[in-house]
Amino acid sequence: MNLPRKHLFDLPDGVIYLDGNSLGPLPRAVPERIAKVTAQEWGQHLIRGWNVDGWMAQPVTVADRIARLIGCPAGSVVLGDTLSVKVYQALSAAVQMRPDRRVILSDSGNFPSDLYMAQGLIAQLGQGHELRVVAPEAVAGAIDDNVAVVMLTHVDYRTGRMHEMNAITARAHAAGALMIWDLAHSAGAVPVDIAGSGAEFAVGCTYKYLNGGPGAPAFIHVRPDIAESVQPALSGWLGHDAPFAFEPGYRPGPGIERMRVGTPPVLQIAALDAALSVWDGVEMADVRAASVALCELFITQVEARCPGLRLASPRDVGQRGSQVSFAFEHGYAAMQALIARGVIGDFRAPDIMRFGFTPLYIDEGDVRAAVDVLEAVMRDRLWDAPDYHARARVT
Amino acid sequence: MNLPRKHLFDLPDGVIYLDGNSLGPLPRAVPERIAKVTAQEWGQHLIRGWNVDGWMAQPVTVADRIARLIGCPAGSVVLGDTLSVKVYQALSAAVQMRPDRRVILSDSGNFPSDLYMAQGLIAQLGQGHELRVVAPEAVAGAIDDNVAVVMLTHVDYRTGRMHEMNAITARAHAAGALMIWDLAHSAGAVPVDIAGSGAEFAVGCTYKYLNGGPGAPAFIHVRPDIAESVQPALSGWLGHDAPFAFEPGYRPGPGIERMRVGTPPVLQIAALDAALSVWDGVEMADVRAASVALCELFITQVEARCPGLRLASPRDVGQRGSQVSFAFEHGYAAMQALIARGVIGDFRAPDIMRFGFTPLYIDEGDVRAAVDVLEAVMRDRLWDAPDYHARARVT
Repeated sequence: MNLPRKHLFDLPDGVIYLDGNSLGPLPRAVPERIAKVTAQEWGQHLIRGWNVDGWMAQPVTVADRIARLIGCPAGSVVLGDTLSVKVYQALSAAVQMRPDRRVILSDSGNFPSDLYMAQGLIAQLGQGHELRVVAPEAVAGAIDDNVAVVMLTHVDYRTGRMHEMNAITARAHAAGALMIWDLAHSAGAVPVDIAGSGAEFAVGCTYKYLNGGPGAPAFIHVRPDIAESVQPALSGWLGHDAPFAFEPGYRPGPGIERMRVGTPPVLQIAALDAALSVWDGVEMADVRAASVALCELFITQVEARCPGLRLASPRDVGQRGSQVSFAFEHGYAAMQALIARGVIGDFRAPDIMRFGFTPLYIDEGDVRAAVDVLEAVMRDRLWDAPDYHARARVT
Repeated sequence: MNLPRKHLFDLPDGVIYLDGNSLGPLPRAVPERIAKVTAQEWGQHLIRGWNVDGWMAQPVTVADRIARLIGCPAGSVVLGDTLSVKVYQALSAAVQMRPDRRVILSDSGNFPSDLYMAQGLIAQLGQGHELRVVAPEAVAGAIDDNVAVVMLTHVDYRTGRMHEMNAITARAHAAGALMIWDLAHSAGAVPVDIAGSGAEFAVGCTYKYLNGGPGAPAFIHVRPDIAESVQPALSGWLGHDAPFAFEPGYRPGPGIERMRVGTPPVLQIAALDAALSVWDGVEMADVRAASVALCELFITQVEARCPGLRLASPRDVGQRGSQVSFAFEHGYAAMQALIARGVIGDFRAPDIMRFGFTPLYIDEGDVRAAVDVLEAVMRDRLWDAPDYHARARVT
C-alpha cells in the first residue's frame, strides 16, 4: 500500500516524527492559507470577511471534510471550542435526555479530561449523578438500566487499545442508554463509521491525526434524528436560530447548528481547512492497511532488538489503533534520549513510551531508522543521563 | 491628545474603519508573527513547541498584557474559549457560591448571548433559578437579597451606554450578591479598574478594541482572593492542578489556572500577542480623552448635517463608551450605502447604525471624511437602492 503524501508535509530535516498522535506536523498548504486569511481576508475585508470569505459558515463546511473520514453524513458535524467543551455539551445533553437515570459509565482508559468534565458536570448539577469508571474490558458487562450514557474514547491514549464501537453501542442501546464516542485518537487514524454504529454523539479533536495545528478546534456530531431534541447547555448566540436578530430569548438553531456556541476561531479553522486538503482522495481503509503494516513492523523489530521494553498495546491488530506503546521503567528519560537523537515520540505517566504511526508521512524506512535509534538508546543506556531525568514532563 | 499609532495597522486604502468595536483591523506585527509560529514553532519544533515556545503558559502570560488595560493584577486573567463560554463559567461559579439565592439579574441592553448562556444554565440546573432582566437604568434599584449575581455588560453593544461600574458593584455587594462584568466593549475602549471595583468576575473578548483577529480567544478574571473558592463547571484537564500527571480525579489548579479548560488556540493567541504590542506604552486615560474628542466631533457634525438621524447613544459623555449609535428607520440600507462608499460601520437590529471610535488608528480627519459621506448618503437618499435592502444581515 502506497500513500505518497509525504511531500505534502513540511517535516524538519533529521527528524522521524512518531508523535502525530499528539500534534500532527505542518502540511505545506497551511502557511500560504494562513497568510491569505490574515492579510487579505482580515486585513482587507475586515468585518466583511464574515460574509464574503465564508467565516460564519466554515464551522460546518470545513467539518464536512471530517464527517467523511468518520462516517457521518454531511451537515451533521460542527467545529468549535475544545474537545473538553464538546464532551461537556454531549454529556449534558445526554443526561438530560435520560432524566430517570443517574449513571455516566466510562472506563479507566479514557482520557482524564473526559472524566474531569463528567465530574464537573455532576458536581454542578447536584442531582445525584454518578461517574462509574470500570476497566476497559469490563465496559460491556457494566451497562445496565441505571446507565444514562456510556462515554468512551474509542482508542486509548496510552495503550492504543481500541473498543469495539458497534458492539458496545448496540449494548448501550439495548440497555436504553445513550452513547458518546470520543474520536481523538481515531479520526484520521482508523476507519470509523459513526452512522453505522448508531451512536448519538461523537466528539474529537483535529490537531492529532488531522494535522490542524496547535489549538485547532474540536468537533461534535449529533445523530441527525435526535439533534433537535438536544437542549444545549452552552446556549450561545451562534447556536441560536437567528443569531443576528438579537432576540432576548434563546431559540436553538436547526440540527447540529445548535451545538455552536460563540465566535468561531477563524484563523485556526483556516489552518485546519488547508491541512485537511492532504486527505483529498484518501480512503481510510488504505490508511488503515498502511498503519497496520507499520505498527506490526515496529512491534516485531522492537521486540527482537530491545528486550528491555514491554509491549503495552494490544498484540491483536484488531484491538489496536494507530499507535504502539511500550512500557519501560525509565521511559521518560528514554524518550528524552530518543528525542535528542531525532526520533520524536512521547511519554505518558507512569511508564509509557508512545509512538504514533501516520502513513500519510511515515513510511517503512522511517520505522526501521527509528528502531535503529531506539535499539542504541536501550543497548547503550543512553537514557541514563542526568539531563533526561530533570526536565518538566510536558510533552 | 496625539496617539500616533496608525502606522502600526494595515488599513485598506480608501476605507474609513469605524467598526473596530466589532472586529479590530490587522496590526502590522501580526502576519510575521503568525508566519513564525506556523513555520518555525509548529513546523520545526512540532510537539516541543508546548515547552520551548511557551505555548502552554501563554494563556496567562499574554493575558497579563490585557490585565494592565482593565485594572487587574498580573496573573489574575486567563485566555481561552469564547466569551459565551467564559460568561457561562463565571455564572455557574457565581450561582454555586450563593446557593440560597435564585435570581440572576441582568438588563435588556446586555448582549443576547450573555442572556442566552444564563437561560441555558438555568434550564440545565433545573433548580428554580430565574433570569431577571430589567431596563439598564433600573438595575441598581432591582438588586435585592434574592439576587445571587448581577451580570452586566459594561458598555451596551447597541447604544454605547456605559454602566457606573463602581456604584453598581457596590450596590450588588451591599445586597450580598456577586458581580460579573462583561468587558466586550470596554477592554481597550475605556478605562476600566476591575480591581478597584471589587467585582468578583470579569470577562471579555479580544477581537474588538484589542484587535486580536477574527475568532481571537476570550478572557476571564476572577478576583484573586476568591479564585480558589471557585469549583469550575467546565473542569478540563488544563485547569487541573497537574494536567500531565493524568490523574483519574479532577483537582482544580491554583488561582485563575482553574478557569482554563482545554488546549489553548496557539495560532490565535500568537496573533493576539502580536496585536497587543500596539498597546505598549499606551495609557487608557489618553485613549479615552482622544475617544471622547472623536465621538463628540462626530455627534456634533452628524446632528448638524444629517437631520434624519436620531442619536441613540447617551448624550452625556460620562455615560457613553467608545462608540456612537444613530437610529434610522432605513438604517440597514443606509449602512450598506456607507460601506459601499468606504465608510465601514455596522448595523444592529432593529434600526441602529453603529460607529466605533478607536483613537489608535482613527483621527479627526477620518471622522470629518466619514461625516461627509454620511451626509451625502442621507441627503441624496443613496440608501434607497434595492441592492442595499436585499443582503443578509450578517455584519
